[in-house]
Amino acid sequence: MQAMKFVDKLLAASRKNKSLLCIGLDPDSALMPRVSISEFNKAIVAATSDLVCAYKPNLAFYEALGIEGLQALQETIDCIPDHIPVIGDGKRGDIGNTAKAYARSLFEFFGFDAATVNPYLGFDSIEPFLKYEDRGIFILCRTSNPGAVDFQNVSGTEGRPLYELVARKAREWNIRDNIGLVVGATYPQELREIRRLCPDMPLLIPGVGAQGGDLALAVTDGVDAHREKAIINVSRQVLYASSDKDFAEAGWRVARDLRDKMNDIISQIKG
Amino acid sequence: MQAMKFVDKLLAASRKNKSLLCIGLDPDSALMPRVSISEFNKAIVAATSDLVCAYKPNLAFYEALGIEGLQALQETIDCIPDHIPVIGDGKRGDIGNTAKAYARSLFEFFGFDAATVNPYLGFDSIEPFLKYEDRGIFILCRTSNPGAVDFQNVSGTEGRPLYELVARKAREWNIRDNIGLVVGATYPQELREIRRLCPDMPLLIPGVGAQGGDLALAVTDGVDAHREKAIINVSRQVLYASSDKDFAEAGWRVARDLRDKMNDIISQIKG
Repeated sequence: MQAMKFVDKLLAASRKNKSLLCIGLDPDSALMPRVSISEFNKAIVAATSDLVCAYKPNLAFYEALGIEGLQALQETIDCIPDHIPVIGDGKRGDIGNTAKAYARSLFEFFGFDAATVNPYLGFDSIEPFLKYEDRGIFILCRTSNPGAVDFQNVSGTEGRPLYELVARKAREWNIRDNIGLVVGATYPQELREIRRLCPDMPLLIPGVGAQGGDLALAVTDGVDAHREKAIINVSRQVLYASSDKDFAEAGWRVARDLRDKMNDIISQIKG
Repeated sequence: MQAMKFVDKLLAASRKNKSLLCIGLDPDSALMPRVSISEFNKAIVAATSDLVCAYKPNLAFYEALGIEGLQALQETIDCIPDHIPVIGDGKRGDIGNTAKAYARSLFEFFGFDAATVNPYLGFDSIEPFLKYEDRGIFILCRTSNPGAVDFQNVSGTEGRPLYELVARKAREWNIRDNIGLVVGATYPQELREIRRLCPDMPLLIPGVGAQGGDLALAVTDGVDAHREKAIINVSRQVLYASSDKDFAEAGWRVARDLRDKMNDIISQIKG
């Protein structure tokens, strides 16, 4: 039996839970109540797994704690129900031979359903990931942070910005239908342009909430023609809804409200 | 007492060992003799630590083996003599808040003297690393792989390629004198241009050996006016000089020959 493709797994979870919400599992001990990271994540997942289309642990927050942190990451992945896709957000990028080792780490050791990658090193840095046909590969296109303009907006070929070239290349490389793009909600116009260029790709959209991106625009401009395939990531707003022992319940409430709000926005899209 | 700056530690090791050679500690079980990774690295380090200016473990090869691999990485770092700088090659890049967690992992948990970072996300993705004044931060500029042309050569401002803009920005950001650049030996003309733009920065130069870059050009075009600050990385050629139990001795011989050859090339530089 062939494994389910990432995009199908994503759509199945998104339809089952009627949700575009992805929760970023980014534990920060300075903001967390006094529990272990894996207990914290387990409680968040238990409270929200019927409200999300995906979870997205960012590896940095686990690596910051060294080997113990990575053990907590493994336990976190293990506690997520099988039908919910898990996106390993590591933004890796290295030459072909080395990228192969990163892909092995993310897809074989950790067993992520998808991973984020950085395009700066070009095709051979992404190809080893793409060879995993049943996994999703989200290429950074236009990121949500202020520094994104430093290089991603450099105008290259025919005066078009670099991030647009990345989107075009991603489309060209997408022969296995397993590529998606990361596009920040903080730049709605760019999001709109990228969705137009890549009408069928899943878009992973961080930047609403703590980073200030507009939720309505992220949803309206991020979804495809079927009003799907936008993965709206929220981390801090859900995880740290309360810093007390009711954190999971408080996170559940925020997640539910966000999910419902996104569905309201979708229902108002014209056409 | 203030900690020694990375560039001073690098120069001290380079002068003591009369060497521009950096050995990339990239264990690949398919090419290694049958020993554990930490035994393998310990033997390589013991055989070569008076022949190098630095060691550079690439994190991908450890992460591919999961948590055990990272334990081996820790043991590897521990076995390197204190006066030899260790460059953690992880090519990380993420938004500010997350980059801070990566910097903590590399500089505080693993204790690397320097780290490689990816510039695609711009200044706020690099700044948390730069705040560690005594560490070195090598920004990917022009990488050694074939895919490097996909985006790094896009001509932006005034028709100049993106990698040049990265070099110019790096120079502008270098207020703490702790930035270096990664420039592949496989593109000698670009290396020459970048050295001209950044005459005082340490350059980390991969791509000689297995990747086919010319050693003489890498040295001649990579060094600064004092014929220093070029860190010529070689991995496979040294590590897998023999796949038998004499691997450390065979690696030692290759490392010694490379070191001596580089010094010959230096002695022939005119002017």
